[in-house]
Amino acid sequence: MTTTISIGNYLLRRLKEINIETIFGVPGDYNMPFLDLIEDDNDLTWGNNANELNASYAADGYARVRGAGAVVTTFGVGELSAVNGIAGSYSEMLPVIHIVGTPVTSSQNSHALLHHSLGNGDFQVFTKMSSLITVAAAHLSPERALEEIDHVIKTAYLRKRPGYIGFPLDLMLKKVSVTEHQLKPLDLANPPNPKEVQEIALQKILEHIAASKNPAIIVDGCVLRQHLEKEANAFVVRSGFPTFSAPMGKGAIDERLPNFRGCYSGNVTLEGITKEVEEADLLIELGSIKSDFNTGNFSYGLEKKKTISLHSFGTTIYHADYNGVCMSELLPLLTASLPENPKELEFGARVRPDPIDESTQEITHNYLWNKVPDFIEPNSIIVAETGTAEFGVFNMNSPKGTSFISQILWGSIGYSVGAALGAAMADRSRRVYLFVGDGSFQLTVQEVSVYIRHGITPVILLLNNDGYLIEKLIHGPHRSYNNYQMWKYSQTLNFFGGHLEHNRTGQGKNPSAVGVEEKVTTRTEFEAAMEKAHTQPDKIHFLEVIMPRFDAPRELKLLVASSENR
Amino acid sequence: MTTTISIGNYLLRRLKEINIETIFGVPGDYNMPFLDLIEDDNDLTWGNNANELNASYAADGYARVRGAGAVVTTFGVGELSAVNGIAGSYSEMLPVIHIVGTPVTSSQNSHALLHHSLGNGDFQVFTKMSSLITVAAAHLSPERALEEIDHVIKTAYLRKRPGYIGFPLDLMLKKVSVTEHQLKPLDLANPPNPKEVQEIALQKILEHIAASKNPAIIVDGCVLRQHLEKEANAFVVRSGFPTFSAPMGKGAIDERLPNFRGCYSGNVTLEGITKEVEEADLLIELGSIKSDFNTGNFSYGLEKKKTISLHSFGTTIYHADYNGVCMSELLPLLTASLPENPKELEFGARVRPDPIDESTQEITHNYLWNKVPDFIEPNSIIVAETGTAEFGVFNMNSPKGTSFISQILWGSIGYSVGAALGAAMADRSRRVYLFVGDGSFQLTVQEVSVYIRHGITPVILLLNNDGYLIEKLIHGPHRSYNNYQMWKYSQTLNFFGGHLEHNRTGQGKNPSAVGVEEKVTTRTEFEAAMEKAHTQPDKIHFLEVIMPRFDAPRELKLLVASSENR
Repeated sequence: MTTTISIGNYLLRRLKEINIETIFGVPGDYNMPFLDLIEDDNDLTWGNNANELNASYAADGYARVRGAGAVVTTFGVGELSAVNGIAGSYSEMLPVIHIVGTPVTSSQNSHALLHHSLGNGDFQVFTKMSSLITVAAAHLSPERALEEIDHVIKTAYLRKRPGYIGFPLDLMLKKVSVTEHQLKPLDLANPPNPKEVQEIALQKILEHIAASKNPAIIVDGCVLRQHLEKEANAFVVRSGFPTFSAPMGKGAIDERLPNFRGCYSGNVTLEGITKEVEEADLLIELGSIKSDFNTGNFSYGLEKKKTISLHSFGTTIYHADYNGVCMSELLPLLTASLPENPKELEFGARVRPDPIDESTQEITHNYLWNKVPDFIEPNSIIVAETGTAEFGVFNMNSPKGTSFISQILWGSIGYSVGAALGAAMADRSRRVYLFVGDGSFQLTVQEVSVYIRHGITPVILLLNNDGYLIEKLIHGPHRSYNNYQMWKYSQTLNFFGGHLEHNRTGQGKNPSAVGVEEKVTTRTEFEAAMEKAHTQPDKIHFLEVIMPRFDAPRELKLLVASSENR
Repeated sequence: MTTTISIGNYLLRRLKEINIETIFGVPGDYNMPFLDLIEDDNDLTWGNNANELNASYAADGYARVRGAGAVVTTFGVGELSAVNGIAGSYSEMLPVIHIVGTPVTSSQNSHALLHHSLGNGDFQVFTKMSSLITVAAAHLSPERALEEIDHVIKTAYLRKRPGYIGFPLDLMLKKVSVTEHQLKPLDLANPPNPKEVQEIALQKILEHIAASKNPAIIVDGCVLRQHLEKEANAFVVRSGFPTFSAPMGKGAIDERLPNFRGCYSGNVTLEGITKEVEEADLLIELGSIKSDFNTGNFSYGLEKKKTISLHSFGTTIYHADYNGVCMSELLPLLTASLPENPKELEFGARVRPDPIDESTQEITHNYLWNKVPDFIEPNSIIVAETGTAEFGVFNMNSPKGTSFISQILWGSIGYSVGAALGAAMADRSRRVYLFVGDGSFQLTVQEVSVYIRHGITPVILLLNNDGYLIEKLIHGPHRSYNNYQMWKYSQTLNFFGGHLEHNRTGQGKNPSAVGVEEKVTTRTEFEAAMEKAHTQPDKIHFLEVIMPRFDAPRELKLLVASSENR
């Protein structure tokens, strides 16, 4: 039994299989027939982004919530604008499928001097560039398009890295014959771990646990990337071991568990917590990512000879590597092999950040990160921009079910504005809180208009400290290059079409229905605005939060201090 | 005799030798010591861009006016955001030097897991990507940094394509010993043409000219890229041959010369002009670029067996190639070899576009491009965005000394907003007129705040036709994906800090001193606003020009019609 399907619709089927409903991107003359298919598909939403970089950030944010993302751009000009976002998805391990509309096959074969090309007849050059920042890249051929699509999507999905599909204009609507077998969903299960090796590793781990007097668990980013939050929480509960979160792992573990102890990040850790971690005689790391900003600039005081590390694609026990023993299969086995009742360990009170300094009405970082969780609903998504916000959330209280999105490894400023769109589109039932500095906001501001167009209602906290603060702390605090023009941030919704009296496309909303925006300079104003945001979930709330110019989260200051000789 | 100089200052010396005074870019922790050197150098200005893509566009626009441009970004996140602009400079042949601050050499050598990296220890991957879109790329080594800098700058400058310099943080301020000889300016002269071959080619050309009854000249983009405007005008004047401009060559030839006949672009040409060109028995092309949008989608009706083509790096006479006989040396020789008095050719009246249709007050394209030259000062720079504006200028009357900037080959929407900044910084004595559509403007809008910060005063004509018009004409006129949120465009200066009551950085201007912005919907309003712009050269003038939704320049409609089977 065969049937026919267009190659474009075949690709859309595969995207749906990996849980994609919104496809981000920007139209271009080389991709529009594919956009027709998206627009005509009632199960799909077109992202309608303001530019390609923002679209790629949105796809990344979306992938963090739903497991995968997709972005469509046009040949050359469009795709290259997106490569920073795609490389970020590589670095931070998100399966984002980058689909690029390219000229018709015959023009490519004849090396025509087309617009959006380098003018040298080379139509593979951009695929080559993207192949360096993806785990699978294909410029679809008429003969093998379906296999190439499957290969890219499956590889990207399993390896948790981006994939690239160059899609010639003439192939998008081209009908091909497919068998029923070919239309079956892709097998996206991880290959099984090597049985014998896994059994040996498991026994070794159990022996070490049995011999340990004070073990500790550190939960890190790959638990989130592998979507093993449930399994990790089960392990933490069953073991009863004191558990710490690395910054990139924040949100993976329920911070209200009695054995959750706080954030560990080398020198950046709260005093008291460091001691608890470093005095453990056995460390069990789940999904560890040892990057500079995740480890207090490599100041982890952890010895390999007392560390067991469960990774996405292997396990390390002290100095021995057990390749192919993946965390996804091993972790539930390990949990099931533990004694039924958790170890009864005695804990002191959990170490908390310094309490709020009440001597001022200024909105300081000390105040902000202590106070803001009071206003955040359970199951929210917190998107924290690179810089002050990223470090501010390290020790922030995490309301139940909160997810955290940040680029601690890739660190592209401006990312959060696009990522917040992606996160909100990924699950409209969850409120998004975006914390973004004024400097980062300037790079990607236009995406706010896309929030309005889609009717999503995040709470935007624009932390205005008048300059690139993280840069100033690292170098040149009084340099002109670390400053820029001040904007009227608290008129953002107004400018980008939120209060539109009349919109010729019919996309407009009634004045004031879309959102509320204001500038807050005191704690009283801040709390009133957050309270209002909390009670009006159907509106965007934009708070321009005026903060002292050189105030920074304690964690950022410590990180900078420990980076000085980098 | 040796002296010492930091590698950073050595690089700045070389940039000054190629006429660079403003260096565009965005700070990042891997480039800031180099920015210190720029900020401390009284002869240099830091571009202070809102994001890296815009910075790369600005460097490209700057290079079009001054001959070369430079942009500084940071490793990974910054540089990848700029690659679309750099690839555009490759495609359109502009020597833009992309300088990227990278981690210290020792961290690179130890493959450290640093932020802004892919997390895999590979610090060459981005250099590899950029090497595919530049003519010379180096990641500076401590041993050979100066030679590497010279190689990149010289190659880029002579080949008129971008170059890439990865600059490790620890090398920027590192002092090196240099001899007086090493500090001499680079030899940037083109190598001489092969003498004998050039002589043969010259004689051949003169023979063909002598035998021709009705020759014609077509001036194209590489005349501008090779800065041979003076030489080309001398040839046109001395020969007296009827002369046409290809779209990419617009601005190279004084359109008030009696033998200038108009724009030739295949099917897109004004009726009457086509006949003049295609009936010529000899065509002399100067700096031809035969790209789709420059040639009415390859509808040039010109036979190779009657065409002589002077190129940047060679000459073609009918079917014979004379490699290495470069236009820069050959063209003045050719002019000098012509008879002293130009051929006395009879010309009819120059073919002009349709006159203004006076039956409406709407600001149509027919009206706009006919009328706007009345308000434009001599020696202005017109920056025309990809899409409607790019095609609108094809047959626009060119005031004396006007330069035109557009990306007819690369065609990245949003480019013009950055390029206008670059052009204005390149020569503050020339007024910049930016024509940009509402769709393109959305991609790069934040750069307007940088105009304000630098105190440049362009006239911005935001052509608001409510959607991506060029896309709609090509495909999907009523598709949702070709529309987006409407903004309050005529509050752009206000939002981006132009009317700032108080700027905490001290960079602000008095309210209303910076600019004037308004929405114009009728011809009367348009003319009043343009008149005001003309009389207030010390202010930014921002006109939101409301145009009919599906109105387009005749040239764009013809191009689309001839592209339908592309």
